[in-house]
Amino acid sequence: MPVLTKTRLLTPGPTDVPADVLLEMAQPIIHHRTKQFQAIFAELSERLQRVFLTSEPVLTIAGSGTTSFEAAQINLVKPGSKTLTIAGGKFGERWQDIYDTYAPTLGITENIKLNVPWGEAVTAAQVEEVLKANPDISVVTLVNSETSTATAADVQAIAAVVSKTDALLIVDGITSVGTLPVKMDEWGIDVLVTGSQKALMLPPGLGFVGLGKRAQARLDEVKPTGYYNLDLRKWLKSWQKNDVPFTPPVSLIRGQRVALEMIENEGLENVWARSAALAKASRAAFTAMGLELISKSPSDSVTGAFYPEGVSDSAIRNGTRDNHSVHIAGGQDGRGASWKGKIFRISNMGYVDAGDILATMHAIETELNAQGQSIKPGTAVAAAGAVFAQG
Amino acid sequence: MPVLTKTRLLTPGPTDVPADVLLEMAQPIIHHRTKQFQAIFAELSERLQRVFLTSEPVLTIAGSGTTSFEAAQINLVKPGSKTLTIAGGKFGERWQDIYDTYAPTLGITENIKLNVPWGEAVTAAQVEEVLKANPDISVVTLVNSETSTATAADVQAIAAVVSKTDALLIVDGITSVGTLPVKMDEWGIDVLVTGSQKALMLPPGLGFVGLGKRAQARLDEVKPTGYYNLDLRKWLKSWQKNDVPFTPPVSLIRGQRVALEMIENEGLENVWARSAALAKASRAAFTAMGLELISKSPSDSVTGAFYPEGVSDSAIRNGTRDNHSVHIAGGQDGRGASWKGKIFRISNMGYVDAGDILATMHAIETELNAQGQSIKPGTAVAAAGAVFAQG
Repeated sequence: MPVLTKTRLLTPGPTDVPADVLLEMAQPIIHHRTKQFQAIFAELSERLQRVFLTSEPVLTIAGSGTTSFEAAQINLVKPGSKTLTIAGGKFGERWQDIYDTYAPTLGITENIKLNVPWGEAVTAAQVEEVLKANPDISVVTLVNSETSTATAADVQAIAAVVSKTDALLIVDGITSVGTLPVKMDEWGIDVLVTGSQKALMLPPGLGFVGLGKRAQARLDEVKPTGYYNLDLRKWLKSWQKNDVPFTPPVSLIRGQRVALEMIENEGLENVWARSAALAKASRAAFTAMGLELISKSPSDSVTGAFYPEGVSDSAIRNGTRDNHSVHIAGGQDGRGASWKGKIFRISNMGYVDAGDILATMHAIETELNAQGQSIKPGTAVAAAGAVFAQG
Repeated sequence: MPVLTKTRLLTPGPTDVPADVLLEMAQPIIHHRTKQFQAIFAELSERLQRVFLTSEPVLTIAGSGTTSFEAAQINLVKPGSKTLTIAGGKFGERWQDIYDTYAPTLGITENIKLNVPWGEAVTAAQVEEVLKANPDISVVTLVNSETSTATAADVQAIAAVVSKTDALLIVDGITSVGTLPVKMDEWGIDVLVTGSQKALMLPPGLGFVGLGKRAQARLDEVKPTGYYNLDLRKWLKSWQKNDVPFTPPVSLIRGQRVALEMIENEGLENVWARSAALAKASRAAFTAMGLELISKSPSDSVTGAFYPEGVSDSAIRNGTRDNHSVHIAGGQDGRGASWKGKIFRISNMGYVDAGDILATMHAIETELNAQGQSIKPGTAVAAAGAVFAQG
């Protein structure tokens, strides 16, 4: 008989959506060419700036995080230049693939791939070395929190390196904005991208692109090669009038305004601290259960561990889902590693708190024991609880 | 910085309402004299019968549990007879007060009060003795789970005693129906009453009255003394046509249908078992923290403990609410005891699961330590977690 009956999405996106947001999205549709919509959109944009920690525009684009990242990538490359794409996991590799696909269209002379082992973070020195050797790199892509490996990069240090060059830094903040400290203006991030379905507590469907001054200037130099989602100039021009170039997902925009209000009511720094505490408690519980962490440079938005020898991935994930209503994620395969079936991951982002983490640790412990492990009952919640009790 | 940020109502009513129910209640109002409403109402009534475990009518009445209990009390007394009102807490005393108030109107010759100490349960033998000495008792009121003392009575045994007499047994199932095993037909309960805002996962506003065969017959013998909420004959007559005598709270009725569907999807016996496990884990955590339980015959729908010497009730309850978003209840004063400021109580009913209980135990432990107790950090969740790990 299950003692956990509430569905908990601990997957690193989509994550659970608060009832206040669901109810806001259930409001009747309003037309987007009205003062009522403009007021909502203006408030959303201001709240986004406060979460991105920028005074520059943050565009709201229909689509997922990938849509927005693709838009950022293809609008900012100088024809006849190189791109530098850094990867240590599945998502970094995706941004590499996008430039490979677009190379002929955009006139990319070389897409330089800087790879680090999965579970490790690139260093600023490594990035600096490549930039020095290739002064004709016009764009660098960097994943802040690599969701596939639960690994965080030092964006501040890398932004300091890139901003001394002519290259623009596009940061994948899809599992970092609104959950880890990311300071767009202070750190000199040129472009910061995220999606709605992670830390921002909305269903999938919106992406956000923060555009620093250097990126805005670059947009004027580069000719558009895409249209609806993909021409950032259109979104920027409309944004300056509190408007959108095309029919936007009105209900999602309404919901996002409310979700950001919740983040600001909690306080952005409190949200960061909560995510850090949840991640610390999760890692403590994994370690107490005898599991090895997947990252040497752990992110606080996603945490993960290797399964012990002989434990079946599908048994654990189906077990946590079917017996405890807790949804966790498995591993992914990529060019740098094959982690499918070998690891599991949980989210510490968005609408999740200590109660959910305790529930998740109980579920994982129970299913590991059902798969032949001999973890003393209560070990995982005791370890997580001890972290929470530190305050 | 709070690691618990989701508001959790662990008060023994109102309790949290699932988003599915909130969203159903957000549907546009439909008129109650339509086939659409009748279909919803018919389904609600059938689902209520399955939760009450009866094939007899279960009436849906606008108002709280008290409204419904008052209606049951005043419609079933034979003029010129006695009533027996059993109390071991605040709510049992309330049903005593109601008959005292109505005694002249209803022609009650004596309202016999059978009192047991708070925290203890009346026995079937005690009830039998009073009934034998007073064959002219026409109604007995009994609280199944006394919310003020977290104490459960043996309804099955007492119903067996009462059903051998001409007296009708009205059972207050306000914190038992849908959370503790209560079998209306099998146990021979004449009237079973509950409210919407406890185990049934709805906002306050609806009460339910299950009417057994003997109670239906009694309704024909007794003249009505009330009207809208208070004349059960009107509700019964309409019920037989899938209808309501007056404009009902349409949105609440829609929501209740969905909430009961959730209960049936989980399985009523699983719901009972979940409540029992949550209560067992709560009591284990209280004991592990060195607290004394308030009940000698503990209910599984509400659990409670005495504060240690010198700990302030308001500091604990404000602390769990303000620092952890966990709402717990304090004690109540009555004729049998004065527990205000001396105890706290939590709910194990309705939309609550092991994650919420772990969160609550963390909150209580943290606030007790903030008030000078020296509980080893993590003790409460470890004790609760060990119970959950027993499966």
